[in-house]
Amino acid sequence: MARDTRQRIEETALALFNAEGEPNVTTNRIADELDISPGNLHYHFRTKSDLIEALFAAFEHRMLELLAAPEERVADIEDIWLLLHLAFETIGAYRFIYRDLSDLCARHRGLHQRFRGILRLTMESASSLCEDLIDDGRMKASARELEALIRNVALVSTFWLAFDQVQDGEGVRPDRAAWQVMSLISPYLVGESRAHLQALAEAYT
Amino acid sequence: MARDTRQRIEETALALFNAEGEPNVTTNRIADELDISPGNLHYHFRTKSDLIEALFAAFEHRMLELLAAPEERVADIEDIWLLLHLAFETIGAYRFIYRDLSDLCARHRGLHQRFRGILRLTMESASSLCEDLIDDGRMKASARELEALIRNVALVSTFWLAFDQVQDGEGVRPDRAAWQVMSLISPYLVGESRAHLQALAEAYT
Repeated sequence: MARDTRQRIEETALALFNAEGEPNVTTNRIADELDISPGNLHYHFRTKSDLIEALFAAFEHRMLELLAAPEERVADIEDIWLLLHLAFETIGAYRFIYRDLSDLCARHRGLHQRFRGILRLTMESASSLCEDLIDDGRMKASARELEALIRNVALVSTFWLAFDQVQDGEGVRPDRAAWQVMSLISPYLVGESRAHLQALAEAYT
Repeated sequence: MARDTRQRIEETALALFNAEGEPNVTTNRIADELDISPGNLHYHFRTKSDLIEALFAAFEHRMLELLAAPEERVADIEDIWLLLHLAFETIGAYRFIYRDLSDLCARHRGLHQRFRGILRLTMESASSLCEDLIDDGRMKASARELEALIRNVALVSTFWLAFDQVQDGEGVRPDRAAWQVMSLISPYLVGESRAHLQALAEAYT
């Protein structure tokens, strides 16, 4: 029962943070929405920071799981597309984190640290996927281009949502976001692989 | 004399906003720093929003001037690099705008509108520069790739600084930022132009 209330608090907080922006939602507002007393909420989460931390931990868990997927074979273009699609679904589910990332990082030093960890792992995964494609003769890039490419993959993935927001875009569309990141890799692909990606983009966006 | 005070207020506000983040700096703090009375500051800028608006107008003026530079001839790679360098110098000078862009846009509807205007013009300029390069046989990209490229140029330009901040990077380095944007274009360049860009990257970053 207590466990159940904790779960419901997290779900309601996530929905409100996503819809209205985390700084604009108080814990009293969350208690109101759930029709529980502020004291009851306080019993489960002593501070709003504790609640934010719990939501971040759930997000982090999903991202790390995605990024740590075992690769028994060299990934092909469709595998990478799928990975990006799943990552953007997760980003969409926890979009309050990405809405004002600098602000969140400034107010919560611990989360800043952990977000940097996710970013580092993102770049390592992107790097190893690209190196596989290069070894396999499906991609061609100089070392300097590859380094800039990896940074751009991380940058576009991290700020796609904020960019969409500044432009008053259509909100989270995992396939559009996936193509926006894949388009960074596209011109470095050789022959078949480049045509394959173009076909995927035609089909999904 | 009054004119002079107004100018000094703007300069001090800009320096404090950049160093500490606009939401963390009050008008009283600015008056303190200048050793003038809050009433004197109030005489020149009725509200903090008026002050932010004045700084944004100065930033906007510099950006529009850059983006509207007349082109008598097809730009070459070095011209584009220089344009980006100047743009990132301006972004660095007014970095408080880019620090928490979503937040600033949410709190100031009018500025959001105007920022979108700058973004639109950025994409139009990038588009016309790329089309010139394509017509001139120095660049090769499909229509779908070109569209994604232009969006990525705008996205990376807009969020380069926030990304650097999240990563605890080295702060504004116009040449590194310029290369990060140019690297998006690099793989679409053909022959000489691509080699020329690589040489510039070697020399400047």
